[in-house]
Amino acid sequence: MTTSYPIITLTTDFGHSEPYVGMMKGVILGRYPTARIVDLTHEIPHFSPLIAGFWVHRSLPYFPVGTIHVAVVDPGVGSSRRLVAASVAGQIVLAPDNGLVTPLVDAGAAVHFREVAQETLDAIGLPLSATFHGRDLFAPLAADLVSGSILFEQLGPTTDDVIKLDHVVPTVKDDQVHGEVIVTDRFGNLMTNLAGEFLGRWDECVVTFAGQEIPVGRTYSDVPVKSSLALVNAHGLVEIAVNRGRAADMFRTSGAKLVTIRRVG
Amino acid sequence: MTTSYPIITLTTDFGHSEPYVGMMKGVILGRYPTARIVDLTHEIPHFSPLIAGFWVHRSLPYFPVGTIHVAVVDPGVGSSRRLVAASVAGQIVLAPDNGLVTPLVDAGAAVHFREVAQETLDAIGLPLSATFHGRDLFAPLAADLVSGSILFEQLGPTTDDVIKLDHVVPTVKDDQVHGEVIVTDRFGNLMTNLAGEFLGRWDECVVTFAGQEIPVGRTYSDVPVKSSLALVNAHGLVEIAVNRGRAADMFRTSGAKLVTIRRVG
Amino acid sequence: MTTSYPIITLTTDFGHSEPYVGMMKGVILGRYPTARIVDLTHEIPHFSPLIAGFWVHRSLPYFPVGTIHVAVVDPGVGSSRRLVAASVAGQIVLAPDNGLVTPLVDAGAAVHFREVAQETLDAIGLPLSATFHGRDLFAPLAADLVSGSILFEQLGPTTDDVIKLDHVVPTVKDDQVHGEVIVTDRFGNLMTNLAGEFLGRWDECVVTFAGQEIPVGRTYSDVPVKSSLALVNAHGLVEIAVNRGRAADMFRTSGAKLVTIRRVG
Repeated sequence: MTTSYPIITLTTDFGHSEPYVGMMKGVILGRYPTARIVDLTHEIPHFSPLIAGFWVHRSLPYFPVGTIHVAVVDPGVGSSRRLVAASVAGQIVLAPDNGLVTPLVDAGAAVHFREVAQETLDAIGLPLSATFHGRDLFAPLAADLVSGSILFEQLGPTTDDVIKLDHVVPTVKDDQVHGEVIVTDRFGNLMTNLAGEFLGRWDECVVTFAGQEIPVGRTYSDVPVKSSLALVNAHGLVEIAVNRGRAADMFRTSGAKLVTIRRVG
Repeated sequence: MTTSYPIITLTTDFGHSEPYVGMMKGVILGRYPTARIVDLTHEIPHFSPLIAGFWVHRSLPYFPVGTIHVAVVDPGVGSSRRLVAASVAGQIVLAPDNGLVTPLVDAGAAVHFREVAQETLDAIGLPLSATFHGRDLFAPLAADLVSGSILFEQLGPTTDDVIKLDHVVPTVKDDQVHGEVIVTDRFGNLMTNLAGEFLGRWDECVVTFAGQEIPVGRTYSDVPVKSSLALVNAHGLVEIAVNRGRAADMFRTSGAKLVTIRRVG
Repeated sequence: MTTSYPIITLTTDFGHSEPYVGMMKGVILGRYPTARIVDLTHEIPHFSPLIAGFWVHRSLPYFPVGTIHVAVVDPGVGSSRRLVAASVAGQIVLAPDNGLVTPLVDAGAAVHFREVAQETLDAIGLPLSATFHGRDLFAPLAADLVSGSILFEQLGPTTDDVIKLDHVVPTVKDDQVHGEVIVTDRFGNLMTNLAGEFLGRWDECVVTFAGQEIPVGRTYSDVPVKSSLALVNAHGLVEIAVNRGRAADMFRTSGAKLVTIRRVG
């Protein structure tokens, strides 16, 4: 790697009650003692690889070249056991091929994917019978990548055929843009995949969600208590929120995910 | 810095569901790869800078000279954007000027404050438009302080004019001392800002809280199950607790915060 | 120690709301700045030293020789203040003598215990009046062990007389083996102390729990949605689970803990 102080980040749905993440760190440090390990989050909602990929993608700008990001979120029963690696902005993302990397695919251009070949896993002595992939495959593989024991190019063949989850990719057309709710945060805010710039793109615009027009604001207190609004959050993304309330609860029965910003006037 | 293994601690209300803290760590390690980062807590109650300051202050004795403590808790809408730095016991505390440092001000004497000047932020290349201060301003500033790129004395002008939150500062007068409940911990214990020495100051004393006399004990089991007591906790502070129960629940309806210790006999 | 990058792991019931764990890390790094600290979990249920010991024991295989594991879980009022150290597989476990090390005792053979002598604590300058053992005794002791300032053999006299908690130790007899539920994880799965090999020991076997026969499967989807099954989990242990449901809820009213595997045919 180009850095002598390599970082490995971890993103999982393992939570903090059991030592699953700690075991992954033991395996990494046992193989490469000077790795620096940073937890992104271990509270990805279950069966939500898309949210894991979303957060890893949003975190890339804040990490130096050479960082390895390990993301392990199980998509539920019958998951693919294939591992994929993405090279992007001088960093590497390791993930199961279950749609987790969809936000990287959307980002397009400068992302290169490789399939992690079974022979690669065999060569570095990883167990064929691994049941806990985070600990038994991803952790040692990440350690070997930061140590330089294996290079990205040696992981396996290049591929463009990674699993991509169906979701709305924001594209402007006819003075409007669609996006969708991608994360419900712990405050019940509905975070979309619409960049905040879309809210400032036109002098006046209307946000539509769940069949309603949602007022645009700068902060929660721009609308009355228990009223909804659309605003740009700390991640630079459009968010549907409720002042002193939970948007997730208010809109639950609608089941809506699609958010539209439309130019008016 | 005087240490070659500098520590940066982080105290926030960001929680663990999203990778906000992880992004801060990426920024720190990208700027100063050998920093050691310790999480104090990321579960400060929202809009509670006083509690953040309380915990940072209580943690100082357990960290070596040269440690930088970053504390970021938003006081709610309309917060001050000024950053302040405090030098205390050979360590530095970085915080927004929103009252967070109140417990340090109370500690008096050996604390020196400096305002972080806008020119300082400009000079080290920090974005003027920062929206996420923890990641965009505090993290890089802490990294530059531990690396020695900038010294405490270079941050900006000294100041005594930091925002101080209104709360009861324990002062002995007429054989009694008042303090107040400052933190409810996860066990429902009510921790005050009264140093434990006050309980040993007089041969006999009476503790009053919520209109009741509270027995003084050394451990929970000094009183019957479900009874309240005042004791000195592991932080050296007077605490109102209930043996095998939750003081927070027992006294909730009273809304009481003021605790008085009075000499008797 | 035999490693130049020693790891200290921490297992507690301190949670993440207050900076208790952070204080322990400050003490460790202040005493031994290059220690690598890994959190196993800080969410051990209160008064459950057995669960802490269970997880430390299960984590050992994933850490390198020379690792020091610190586990601090209070058993409730009236706890023993004696500290014990266990040497196992080239690693050391430090714990209160309150039954926490029971899973190590069960493992038998290659575990050696020493009592930490009061003179040892005195000699390395630890406070006699320590109230917060994790921070005041365990943290500095762990730091001194990884630094080599003190050796395992110097901690105090060997002992076989450690406190052992009453629980069902799996032993095969008359073509059956009993174990018990030891941990309910966050998914509501009921993890037992029965090694997974017991499920494969006989060609055909029957698992009984809460008066019911539980089907044996390899993955959750081997049974219909909302049905229970017994399987070997990622820790190599027999687990009672429910496909897309919570076994803890399904069996709550039964209060059952005993699990029996019986040979048939």
